[in-house]
Amino acid sequence: MPVTDSTTGSSLDRVLAGDTRALARLLSAVEDDAARIRSVIKDLLPKTGAARIIGLTGAPGVGKSTVTGALVGAFRAAGRRVAVLAVDPSSPFTGGALLGDRIRMQEHATDDAVFIRSMASRGHLGGLAAATPQAIRVLDAAGFELIIIETVGVGQAEVAIASLADSVVVLLAPGMGDAIQAAKAGILEVADLYVVNKADKPDAQQVVRDLRNMLALGHRAQDDWKPPIITTVGSRGEGIDEMAARLDAHWDWLRSSGELERRRQARAREEITALAIAALRARLAAGAIESGGLDELAAQVADGTLDPFQAAEQLAAQAEAVPYTRG
Amino acid sequence: MPVTDSTTGSSLDRVLAGDTRALARLLSAVEDDAARIRSVIKDLLPKTGAARIIGLTGAPGVGKSTVTGALVGAFRAAGRRVAVLAVDPSSPFTGGALLGDRIRMQEHATDDAVFIRSMASRGHLGGLAAATPQAIRVLDAAGFELIIIETVGVGQAEVAIASLADSVVVLLAPGMGDAIQAAKAGILEVADLYVVNKADKPDAQQVVRDLRNMLALGHRAQDDWKPPIITTVGSRGEGIDEMAARLDAHWDWLRSSGELERRRQARAREEITALAIAALRARLAAGAIESGGLDELAAQVADGTLDPFQAAEQLAAQAEAVPYTRG
Repeated sequence: MPVTDSTTGSSLDRVLAGDTRALARLLSAVEDDAARIRSVIKDLLPKTGAARIIGLTGAPGVGKSTVTGALVGAFRAAGRRVAVLAVDPSSPFTGGALLGDRIRMQEHATDDAVFIRSMASRGHLGGLAAATPQAIRVLDAAGFELIIIETVGVGQAEVAIASLADSVVVLLAPGMGDAIQAAKAGILEVADLYVVNKADKPDAQQVVRDLRNMLALGHRAQDDWKPPIITTVGSRGEGIDEMAARLDAHWDWLRSSGELERRRQARAREEITALAIAALRARLAAGAIESGGLDELAAQVADGTLDPFQAAEQLAAQAEAVPYTRG
Repeated sequence: MPVTDSTTGSSLDRVLAGDTRALARLLSAVEDDAARIRSVIKDLLPKTGAARIIGLTGAPGVGKSTVTGALVGAFRAAGRRVAVLAVDPSSPFTGGALLGDRIRMQEHATDDAVFIRSMASRGHLGGLAAATPQAIRVLDAAGFELIIIETVGVGQAEVAIASLADSVVVLLAPGMGDAIQAAKAGILEVADLYVVNKADKPDAQQVVRDLRNMLALGHRAQDDWKPPIITTVGSRGEGIDEMAARLDAHWDWLRSSGELERRRQARAREEITALAIAALRARLAAGAIESGGLDELAAQVADGTLDPFQAAEQLAAQAEAVPYTRG
């Protein structure tokens, strides 16, 4: 589904007017290749900046979908338009994610103010990392006040994606030993709110205590945000109103402390650097193709007659002779 | 543990002479920063190329350490010097890996012809990906005839590391549902040998059948290597001699078919490209620091007045004005 120049203008107008099909098409194009947004980004940009971005992550089985669904309900009850972007960095297939969409859509299927979308890595993690900021930009411009990015897992890819959010929620549950797993992956350090779900299970309070002990070891400045720990039972909607209230409080703090601006600039730095590296990577590939140089260099490195660092320098020098083909 | 110019010559001589401590120090330096190998690579290169590199991967719990230990025993019985590089891309900590070293070393602790080393990602996956080829180069030069790279897990990072090997072994076990997980991650496609471990468990034959069905769906050319499926009980050493024999057969095929040269050149292409991108990334960072340009660009992107793709082009242009600081 390419975004061709001839259809761009009108399809973007439809996206901005709230046409869900046009929105889904634009997101597909961006997921396929983040650079596809270039043809419309100038018209999109002035419409962005108002959305609040909430990242929600946790190990499989902690109840992310249930809690997300309940949270969407709470925000809708307050009259807000909500989009959910479910990102699965570990799965190269969209099949499962799409099935998940359909199941979760049921609850909010007739509600035009809710948009739920899954993105999988399609076997190429870099592509997903590049596409996610653009998908957020599209949803922001389309007028969603809240954008929830839900990621599966607690690995480094999830930490990177969570760092795109204004507020980061880490979801845990009793009996999964995942507080320690989350700590290992560094996800605990980026959290603004801890939610211990399945609080009706026996060990929930132990998870809260473990978490408190771990957090006591960290150092935060006096006027820093102190991430609260709350408990929920997502399946019965218990604790969800408090979760929404805590997120609102974090949002107020982000704006009053200047942290929101700081985070968004940090996010922009990451995005720019990633795009610059992608552009240079494309030029390297182009340089290699045009000169046939990489194969020659590789043959010499493989037989031990050329040091790979020198080969890399020669390749980079060749790439610089090639003009930019894409940004 | 820096490899300083003053000590380089003599410490490299010690590595080449089989000094295990000097070898461990050089590997630490390379793990810390792959580029540290630059000071010795010219002297190392002529000594490399003879080692056979075997990649072994599988989900946690399939018995990788046990099978690796048994395989080392089989190779040692044939009089070969063996090194094991255990790489854990999912763990940012070396602690667990080092403990694993000590436990597994016991069996071969008094054997100078066996060297076992763990590498963890230290929270930076790119660093591990860059360090692994250099660690292999060092072990190759140090005279190990067989280098086994053992990776934990079946994700994309593991596929990437497995692709460094001449022969790739995928380990599975009954009752873990990991054939499908492995298929999802694309690891089945890179395997040269399938080993179903824990073959004394009831469902082992079912795993073999599942695997056969999956492989029947794939297409391989007439004269391609057909990856065998064998069964082992690593804890009792059963099937390990067959495993070693199958690996020897694959090695013979690699050499007679020309595939070895093809694989090693592909590996060199990957290595050169990765190093060139790392060099360009360092120059981007240097460009940003010198001009203060990235912060300014990020502020404009964050407030929606500049498109991130244009910002990336400006950043890349700044980086080109900066001379190479490292390769």
